[in-house]
Amino acid sequence: MPGYWWVNHKQTVRQEIGGQYLWSPKTNRNGARNVSYDNMREANPGDLVLSYANGRIAWIGRVVDFAFTSPKPEEFGNAGANWKDEGWLLPVFWTPLTPAIVPRTLIDRLGPLLPERYSPISPTTGHGNQAIYLAKISEPVFRTLIGAGDYDAQALARGGENSLSYEIVTEQLNDIVEDRIASDRTLDDTTRRAMIQARRGQGVFRRNVEAIDPACRLTGITNPLLLKASHIKPWRLCQTAAERLDGWNGLMLTPDADHLFDRGFITFEDDGNVKVSQRVSDEELRRLGFGHLVQQRFGLAEAPAIWPTGEFRPQQQAYLDYHRTAVYVH
Amino acid sequence: MPGYWWVNHKQTVRQEIGGQYLWSPKTNRNGARNVSYDNMREANPGDLVLSYANGRIAWIGRVVDFAFTSPKPEEFGNAGANWKDEGWLLPVFWTPLTPAIVPRTLIDRLGPLLPERYSPISPTTGHGNQAIYLAKISEPVFRTLIGAGDYDAQALARGGENSLSYEIVTEQLNDIVEDRIASDRTLDDTTRRAMIQARRGQGVFRRNVEAIDPACRLTGITNPLLLKASHIKPWRLCQTAAERLDGWNGLMLTPDADHLFDRGFITFEDDGNVKVSQRVSDEELRRLGFGHLVQQRFGLAEAPAIWPTGEFRPQQQAYLDYHRTAVYVH
Repeated sequence: MPGYWWVNHKQTVRQEIGGQYLWSPKTNRNGARNVSYDNMREANPGDLVLSYANGRIAWIGRVVDFAFTSPKPEEFGNAGANWKDEGWLLPVFWTPLTPAIVPRTLIDRLGPLLPERYSPISPTTGHGNQAIYLAKISEPVFRTLIGAGDYDAQALARGGENSLSYEIVTEQLNDIVEDRIASDRTLDDTTRRAMIQARRGQGVFRRNVEAIDPACRLTGITNPLLLKASHIKPWRLCQTAAERLDGWNGLMLTPDADHLFDRGFITFEDDGNVKVSQRVSDEELRRLGFGHLVQQRFGLAEAPAIWPTGEFRPQQQAYLDYHRTAVYVH
Repeated sequence: MPGYWWVNHKQTVRQEIGGQYLWSPKTNRNGARNVSYDNMREANPGDLVLSYANGRIAWIGRVVDFAFTSPKPEEFGNAGANWKDEGWLLPVFWTPLTPAIVPRTLIDRLGPLLPERYSPISPTTGHGNQAIYLAKISEPVFRTLIGAGDYDAQALARGGENSLSYEIVTEQLNDIVEDRIASDRTLDDTTRRAMIQARRGQGVFRRNVEAIDPACRLTGITNPLLLKASHIKPWRLCQTAAERLDGWNGLMLTPDADHLFDRGFITFEDDGNVKVSQRVSDEELRRLGFGHLVQQRFGLAEAPAIWPTGEFRPQQQAYLDYHRTAVYVH
């Protein structure tokens, strides 16, 4: 069963609808948590989102992928000047609602169904709540607003030519970073090539990681032809050449483990234990060959890696801390 | 224990040593098999290669990765004009032998050790055998030629800044193809974008593959977030837009399965059975979660997929035939 969401767009509705996503900062400007930003990470693929702007719901969207850490979209320009540069990007495939729906006109039926806290619009006046960005709504609220014939459910399920996914968005972001590195005249040729090769886990970065620990912590595999050098803090989010090439900022992982780690479906505690996201089912873990993680998952939030190589070093812990907060999808 | 090889370079010694590889066509010009080209696929990572040119062995190399299908290097220019455009590329990390070794001067001791067939030099005159490119040699032949102090074994084991790997070479080849597609004015924008997205298994290509079979044949996983759309005939080797986007030219696979398939460590028979290369050990298969392939491997060259989805369609079989001959490493 899908979840239902409501987004109060402000200045960036055009960019977000056109670009097939939602973007929010991670916290308020003063660093305080904000439930409607935290909600970005709660949305699951298949959930439905209503886009509210200027008093009307003119678009309905289907969540395509989990939210992930991403720089503020450049196309926001001045509209997003008050927000921090790093936030959550949630890929959403949008289709239009015609005619658009005006929630204020339904407020008599809608009001009693809306929650007391974090309601996206006032249950009495029907005006949008400026303090809320992404809000969870109940199925009755959704059904009160949207009838079965109000949108093209098939088109929404199918997705479009331009609908985004984690892979497409991160490739685009990586391309932007790579172009910047390629044209950075402050770097010497060797460093520049090493930084670009590190994007795919190759070259100097890979050798640096292998020198620290050449084995996959989840499978014990040591054959380099079966392993990838995975950044702990993702390559696109590193700030410096040193971070991108740092052997402490990497783990040798099998392709499955690399994928789960990169997508934030698993992470590691400082003591070496594995944490598995609730978004991956036990059956999926088993089929991927990580049955040992299922056993230890039962009743526990963490599971020891099957080939324990012990506690991480302090230099790795700093990067793992970033991974747990910015990459891991709990 | 490493294997030992001898390569008779002809016109392309400079390119191959400088580029850290060996390259050969797959067959003679008339299409006939040639043992010394087939040998390219027999070399294993860690094997040692002696480079013979102009009567001297001036370089020793360590095989870095298995050979894979690759276009003829552009830097061959006219030197390779007689060869077909598709061949085997074997990544080799070369270090110099100083002084160079002149096998002819050792022919009295060497001659009796050389094989009767496919010897890289004449056992009597010590002249190079022009009909041979890559030849297997025995350890005694190697030891007769090369003393322990003749090269820097540590440097050879470590590899260099520029040593190639499958990933680095295929990225470079893919970049060349992508540049060609990006500047091809005969393509419309939509097709061009779809072809480029297909490189990473995204966009139209992925949807085409999912429409035919959305599940991984090796694990039964159907969650799209855990699957990659893998080309059967590799993207870089496709000839047309149609091949690159063809849903019949793809399989949905988990990252491990995608990696093994892409590297040619597994392939499929037309009836749906899996073939596992001898280059992957039983223990590695088990740790990757493919223990079911080990069981059925014992005494058999082929193993049924765990989630049999039956025979492939004729359209898929054509691509699988290519995969078995040009990608699979037996």
